[in-house]
Amino acid sequence: MNDNTILIKNALILSPNTNFENKQSILIKDNLIAEISPDIDESNVSKIIDATGKILLPGLINTHTHLSMTLFRGLADDLSLDSWLNDYIWPMEANLNGDYCYIGALLGAVELIKSGTTTFSDMYFYMEDVARAVDESGIRAVLSYGMIDFGDEDKRKNEINENLELFKSCEGMGNGRIKVFLGPHSPYTASEELLIQVRELADEYDMGIHIHVSETQKEIVDISSEKGLRPFEYLDKIGFLGPDVVAAHCVWLSDNEIEIIKKNNVKISHNPCSNMKLASGIAPVSKLIENDICVSIGTDGASSNNNLDLIEELKTASLLQKVSTLDPKVLTSDETLSMGTIKGAETLGLESEIGSIEVGKKADIILIDTNSANMIPDSSSLSSNIIYSANGLNVDTTICDGKILMENKKLTVLDEGEIYQKARQAIKELKEAI
Amino acid sequence: MNDNTILIKNALILSPNTNFENKQSILIKDNLIAEISPDIDESNVSKIIDATGKILLPGLINTHTHLSMTLFRGLADDLSLDSWLNDYIWPMEANLNGDYCYIGALLGAVELIKSGTTTFSDMYFYMEDVARAVDESGIRAVLSYGMIDFGDEDKRKNEINENLELFKSCEGMGNGRIKVFLGPHSPYTASEELLIQVRELADEYDMGIHIHVSETQKEIVDISSEKGLRPFEYLDKIGFLGPDVVAAHCVWLSDNEIEIIKKNNVKISHNPCSNMKLASGIAPVSKLIENDICVSIGTDGASSNNNLDLIEELKTASLLQKVSTLDPKVLTSDETLSMGTIKGAETLGLESEIGSIEVGKKADIILIDTNSANMIPDSSSLSSNIIYSANGLNVDTTICDGKILMENKKLTVLDEGEIYQKARQAIKELKEAI
Repeated sequence: MNDNTILIKNALILSPNTNFENKQSILIKDNLIAEISPDIDESNVSKIIDATGKILLPGLINTHTHLSMTLFRGLADDLSLDSWLNDYIWPMEANLNGDYCYIGALLGAVELIKSGTTTFSDMYFYMEDVARAVDESGIRAVLSYGMIDFGDEDKRKNEINENLELFKSCEGMGNGRIKVFLGPHSPYTASEELLIQVRELADEYDMGIHIHVSETQKEIVDISSEKGLRPFEYLDKIGFLGPDVVAAHCVWLSDNEIEIIKKNNVKISHNPCSNMKLASGIAPVSKLIENDICVSIGTDGASSNNNLDLIEELKTASLLQKVSTLDPKVLTSDETLSMGTIKGAETLGLESEIGSIEVGKKADIILIDTNSANMIPDSSSLSSNIIYSANGLNVDTTICDGKILMENKKLTVLDEGEIYQKARQAIKELKEAI
Repeated sequence: MNDNTILIKNALILSPNTNFENKQSILIKDNLIAEISPDIDESNVSKIIDATGKILLPGLINTHTHLSMTLFRGLADDLSLDSWLNDYIWPMEANLNGDYCYIGALLGAVELIKSGTTTFSDMYFYMEDVARAVDESGIRAVLSYGMIDFGDEDKRKNEINENLELFKSCEGMGNGRIKVFLGPHSPYTASEELLIQVRELADEYDMGIHIHVSETQKEIVDISSEKGLRPFEYLDKIGFLGPDVVAAHCVWLSDNEIEIIKKNNVKISHNPCSNMKLASGIAPVSKLIENDICVSIGTDGASSNNNLDLIEELKTASLLQKVSTLDPKVLTSDETLSMGTIKGAETLGLESEIGSIEVGKKADIILIDTNSANMIPDSSSLSSNIIYSANGLNVDTTICDGKILMENKKLTVLDEGEIYQKARQAIKELKEAI
């Protein structure tokens, strides 16, 4: 008997780029997928999960969010981006502290686990506290500190120091579940000097970069007016771009910018619900994919979504491309599923570790119960059933790094009741502080 | 003790056009809302439901679907409308019969009840069998037979006869839960003669009319070419339009057609997910609403959606208008909620009976449990929490016509296990018959 073995049997496996015929068993040893076969000996495993009637997928990967902002869910809706930020989000953020961000991240972690996301990429403040929540919750994360200098040299030094401290204290935490990226907020909030230093540090420390680019038309106008170039042209000119850059949003792109993205192998995190809700615009995702650019999916923060349900986000991504191109054949359910799994892994430089069901990869696995009214008949393609019919609440079991975080819709690690209570208290205090 | 009384206490009520302060109790007597008050005597009621932590809403209203097509969920995706219809849907429909449509309707009814929809408007075939499923399931429905004559006089007579027989046999069934409308399929499948007869019959029998109009660009081109007029111009010219007409889709509308819709007080059923998935286009919903036109929401069939989750549909409607107009202030959560409740009731001519929580209205009521990760913190506006954060699987309790159809997420009337099994068998047989 091995204490760290889990056998999942009778699973219909849905994994990008591989067709598994019939039902399979998967053996997890420690934190890895050790074996995939129609028949695995059950006698020496410490835990057996019968996946009959369930679809087994790689844990979903959310490549752009601000997890602590889950506290701000529903705080402000139906507003212009300016009013949303100036009148609601920024005043609330002014009173944030590490404890609030920790609670917000735990609340977000509960939602991620319950809806089948095992890895998320975050950019925010008080990131050591977010790391603490990630460590305790058992999920996987890429964390970056959102650096904003607005051209101020002292602020720039402090911001870079903050992000590097995060790297020194948290890189590799939680059995390697936590990685740290550099997080220059955007080309309109981070100065050219900051962006150039970030590129140097990324090369020096082999760190990835997480940045917002081309979210709104206003950003394009402002940067074009200041730099005489569109955002990606500017970032290319200063040597900032590379395959380690994850650019979130990328709504407004010229053909030349798509060429630049392709040439530099920049990774894109598409955030359709946030882009729709804030009326930012529709990213040209199918055109990016036609150009062999790696596009993954992110929910953005719950304050502009207003949830972290990656299955809902994937459906929205597919449907939005179909209607905006007037072509129902773009972003098929298989392609869309890839965006939430292996493309997410590639985006974060983790494709050798996660994003598909393969022997030797980390055991980040979810089970979705098809015995639910919204998924029957279940005779269609597995990816269609997941992308178009399901939502996050159909997720039944979530395993990350070989550890069961939810089984039969019950959390096994986090105490959701306690977290809900603390989150309600936190937002109450934050509202009272305004 | 009265056998037909239910007291729901400690409810946060979310009802269009009324602000309920604090928690309320609602007393249901027989099939009606008898009293709403902060404090109602509990001693003489046969059933008490404690709604603490739950939001109470009117049952949702889906104004355009084809319920039996739930059997075809995921049958064919990512295809052009032509291929989807010609290669998949029509060949399958050729082998349908009353028993299959009954099972499909029951499967759809399970999904509706589980996701909080208590009333749906349907257009399809074998509608007596759909009526049987509605009667047994306890939900409310407006049923129409989809009449298609393609100009053939004999076929026209048969089709009209079929719809009138449905009216005679099913109008008022199930304690008045079933109403029958006339269902001319569309201006491109129903001849001018058929449409004119439908108008006469609607006036004679006081029946509503359910029709598809202006779903695709091709339809506009075809009708313009044949009639020299755009679809609504043509329908206006032949005297077909009126306040009793429910037009589904209405994606491609000229300004003149919007004037025509307004002048005739035609009701619109907006189907965003289907319009996106089939790449039909984006309906100008916010412009319709600005013109005081009544716009409600429909899922269309599960074969082009691929679920019947009206909360997901409402979120999609709101977000799609925001991004397509580049205005985040359109379709607020309150306006969007109205589309799924009171505007749905108005669309179906049932606004005196359903669509809001008011004394004297039918007890069509749902409870949504906010104690779920995707809805916390729950300190925001109730409508925001429902429209932007929730989905249908957050629905906890569904009551229709004073009868509890689901409580604590467990169905009380239908046997879902048996229905799932029969639905799987039905689609298996239908696929084998091709």
